[in-house]
Amino acid sequence: MHRCIEMASSNLDQMLTILENPTRRRILQKLSRERHYPLQLSRELKVSQQAIMKHLKVLEEYRLVKCRTEKSDAGGPERKCYVTDHQFSLIIDFAPNMFNVEMRPLTKDKEVGREYDKFEKERRRLLSVRDSKKRLREISRFIQEINEEIDDLGAKRAHLMGLKDEALEEAHAAVEELGRDYNERRLLYYLLDEADRSLASISEKLDLREKVIREMLKRFGENRILIEGGE
Amino acid sequence: MHRCIEMASSNLDQMLTILENPTRRRILQKLSRERHYPLQLSRELKVSQQAIMKHLKVLEEYRLVKCRTEKSDAGGPERKCYVTDHQFSLIIDFAPNMFNVEMRPLTKDKEVGREYDKFEKERRRLLSVRDSKKRLREISRFIQEINEEIDDLGAKRAHLMGLKDEALEEAHAAVEELGRDYNERRLLYYLLDEADRSLASISEKLDLREKVIREMLKRFGENRILIEGGE
Repeated sequence: MHRCIEMASSNLDQMLTILENPTRRRILQKLSRERHYPLQLSRELKVSQQAIMKHLKVLEEYRLVKCRTEKSDAGGPERKCYVTDHQFSLIIDFAPNMFNVEMRPLTKDKEVGREYDKFEKERRRLLSVRDSKKRLREISRFIQEINEEIDDLGAKRAHLMGLKDEALEEAHAAVEELGRDYNERRLLYYLLDEADRSLASISEKLDLREKVIREMLKRFGENRILIEGGE
Repeated sequence: MHRCIEMASSNLDQMLTILENPTRRRILQKLSRERHYPLQLSRELKVSQQAIMKHLKVLEEYRLVKCRTEKSDAGGPERKCYVTDHQFSLIIDFAPNMFNVEMRPLTKDKEVGREYDKFEKERRRLLSVRDSKKRLREISRFIQEINEEIDDLGAKRAHLMGLKDEALEEAHAAVEELGRDYNERRLLYYLLDEADRSLASISEKLDLREKVIREMLKRFGENRILIEGGE
């Protein structure tokens, strides 16, 4: 089961364009900690308020931040402040035989959660700690624990990616040995790495007509290349 | 142990700027499968050869691709072809209380490898399969297996990130309750999430002088905020 959720490439393009800008990343970093007023962002990031407003407008348009109005302390007019919104991971994997960009939601999953039941219980316990200083110390320890687990997963993932890159190197060499034409090789690279073998998906990804793909798959089947039997 | 390797932010900035360009990503995708000649890239991606050469130059400068010269089939002059080089993962995690960008190397790790010994053995077995068609089928199955494992790790990571975001939400609320000033809050957010508590690291990350940080830490210690005792 391929659980990754790939966003339409246009979404991915947009997200990378938005996040490429260092000032926008610094704004998001600030807002992820606490709400900020535009003036405050301008002062902290040493960027003109006009530029800040322009960035906030883009971030709001793509729903990465949202605007809230807050009453002023001194009973003055309402003030606009901004907080982050949305959640996702964007991952780019780059190795000599591999280049993948994917987005996936960053949400808790019931099925996965069972494995991390101890964390869930610990989190609930933390909420019941009355003293806010004590709660903060304990939450901090809890976050460090989660960070270690996340690092472990990252090291495992990096190892598997290294293995996959080696396997792809072998596979690409084997594809070359077969002496097929360019589009046939493209189809083989696709089939090697993708679980979704529906004609519609292949056609979209490779920008080739379904009829052309069906014929290539038939030839692969006849020659027992990747596919066993006549498709 | 915080195993992540964070590149200097200037490197990260550069990498995001390079990868933000959709044509460059398409070039890298192509080259990660097999070597290409500039003319071939231009034809396949329907982009002028001049633009392709410009992108390849940038990619070569940042060592994401390298150029090889190959003898022409027809005994003509040597031709330049390009392949991908380098390896890393670039990960952006975005959630309402969290915004992290990190790069880490994508390499096999001996310590981690022990856990995936079955994959390593399987990979060695695959190399000994003589028939190239059979080898390709088996490598493909092997890659699907690794993909499933990588997806599982991704789902686990996403779950933990969801948990972490919830914990950070609690922590940020607790920080607000303490009523400290802006830079003190910045330091608290840093301490909550970072294992590296050396003055030099904090000073660099928060762009504050070590003296200022030392004084804040002293106050936190005195008030038992995150730090127990007088530092």
